[in-house]
Amino acid sequence: MNRIKDLFRIQYPVIQAGMIWCSGWKLASAVSNAGGLGLIGAGSMHPEVLSEHILKCKKATDKPFGVNIPLLYPQIDEIIRIVCDNSVKIVFTSAGSPKKYTSFLKNKGIIVAHVVASSKNAKKCEEAGVDAVVAEGFEAGGHNGAEETTTMALIPSVRKAIKLPLIAAGGIASGAGVLAAFALGAEGVQIGSRFAVSVESSAHIGFKNKIIQSSEGDTKLMLKKLGPVRLLKNKFFDSVKQAEESCATESELKELLGQGRAKKGMFEGELEEGELEIGQIASIIEYNKPAAEILKEIIVEYESLRIEMTGNSFKFDT
Amino acid sequence: MNRIKDLFRIQYPVIQAGMIWCSGWKLASAVSNAGGLGLIGAGSMHPEVLSEHILKCKKATDKPFGVNIPLLYPQIDEIIRIVCDNSVKIVFTSAGSPKKYTSFLKNKGIIVAHVVASSKNAKKCEEAGVDAVVAEGFEAGGHNGAEETTTMALIPSVRKAIKLPLIAAGGIASGAGVLAAFALGAEGVQIGSRFAVSVESSAHIGFKNKIIQSSEGDTKLMLKKLGPVRLLKNKFFDSVKQAEESCATESELKELLGQGRAKKGMFEGELEEGELEIGQIASIIEYNKPAAEILKEIIVEYESLRIEMTGNSFKFDT
Repeated sequence: MNRIKDLFRIQYPVIQAGMIWCSGWKLASAVSNAGGLGLIGAGSMHPEVLSEHILKCKKATDKPFGVNIPLLYPQIDEIIRIVCDNSVKIVFTSAGSPKKYTSFLKNKGIIVAHVVASSKNAKKCEEAGVDAVVAEGFEAGGHNGAEETTTMALIPSVRKAIKLPLIAAGGIASGAGVLAAFALGAEGVQIGSRFAVSVESSAHIGFKNKIIQSSEGDTKLMLKKLGPVRLLKNKFFDSVKQAEESCATESELKELLGQGRAKKGMFEGELEEGELEIGQIASIIEYNKPAAEILKEIIVEYESLRIEMTGNSFKFDT
Repeated sequence: MNRIKDLFRIQYPVIQAGMIWCSGWKLASAVSNAGGLGLIGAGSMHPEVLSEHILKCKKATDKPFGVNIPLLYPQIDEIIRIVCDNSVKIVFTSAGSPKKYTSFLKNKGIIVAHVVASSKNAKKCEEAGVDAVVAEGFEAGGHNGAEETTTMALIPSVRKAIKLPLIAAGGIASGAGVLAAFALGAEGVQIGSRFAVSVESSAHIGFKNKIIQSSEGDTKLMLKKLGPVRLLKNKFFDSVKQAEESCATESELKELLGQGRAKKGMFEGELEEGELEIGQIASIIEYNKPAAEILKEIIVEYESLRIEMTGNSFKFDT
């Protein structure tokens, strides 16, 4: 019995995170075909591009897949319409209130998951009628919560706070991470960084290589005045660091960030001037592989560690 | 087989963190008597007070116990001498280079563990001949690493980097946390916050109650210019926040911090003006109990979850 498998009708409770500039139809369909849940990341797509990706994904897989929609998307109503018109069955919403679109989507028969970084917002998901919650820790790549609660601290807390099926995210890139997330009370995991470097990821090869070569301490949560985002260190990161150390204002940071910097870095491969978003766990990622192999590796490692743990008994016998 | 149990000759691979103003002989002996490893926290003790605590601890338990020594302690040589003169068998060092005292202590027959926040420093421990490494994540209370790597990301990375017995710390306060740490590759855990509120902790009752009442998001890593430390929010925290937001210099922060502020807050119960150090996982701590009951609860929960996990199979069968 696993509620995440049942809810999404998937073989393994592993969700590939919807990531800007990484997860188009190729990655989503590859993960879904391998038995996980692939998500198209709408955040970096113009509405017409999203339509195209949904259609291509449907052609590439007959398994369930979903679309991740950051609710702060400028043309959000158009994105919601496209998802409904194209009969997408699963939507992950993030970066906004779950109360805004959940009822609307559920009335169309769509399964809705929402991403949070706190128990307080997880409870709001329950009130809004969301079907599953993704709780994402401080170590995750990209945009992140203000309270800086890590996956180790967040998952047990959210588990206590809500009864909904719970997906852990942040710091998970291996079977060991999946087993740890399950130990903490999650019933599924969402994995970003590891799939960002997969063969099917649309990220620029230079960005993928930089992720693979990165070490511990090479990412940091920055731009907290604009909305915290975990960045991989490069020249742009250094500029942000310097600006923040000299107390740059919100508008100065906005100006420094400018427009389209994530596209430049992650999609066009401008590795020094671009914005590179990735999670802390990038440090243990060593290879660029097809998504199906990544998923298989994770499940096989999970299973072997799970069996190993059965020998790790510490009965309280005093 | 568990290398941490074998190394320290203890029943459960659970170490009670050596914490300033919390872990004197009462807490250390209670944890050791219950089958874990209790540590006296030398960081907040004058040399003669440490001697007294070691003697009292020896009277209170015939089980192994240890002393935690922050290497930045001003009279460090005297502290090292006291530990040796009093035939302490186990020393945990932190906040400094493992190369400085490890050989000296090991030549006296002392078992040495060292606390790190990165794989780079874990490797230095291996070179220095340390017996075990404590890897502590960003979510931990008190002083913390500059790279901000969380326990989920740090443990698998340190596990890869070194062969030494590995103790996970940061974000662990329950059996679920212990199981997660083991899944990530640890062979033991170090638990601070949960024991800080125990009956035997020498922390002020007002501080213990504030920990128990605290919620998610009530701690934050502050004072990064002086050396990052995780603080519980109060009036002093607000002053630090305000100072940092207006780009206070290192010396301004030092002046704001002043002398003896942690003692004021944690030991004397000045809950608004004092410095209160605690981990993120404080948010799930609900009761003040004797240390032996806390340890038992953790082991019983660990064991029940471990058995539950044996039903959580996801074989890769495509």
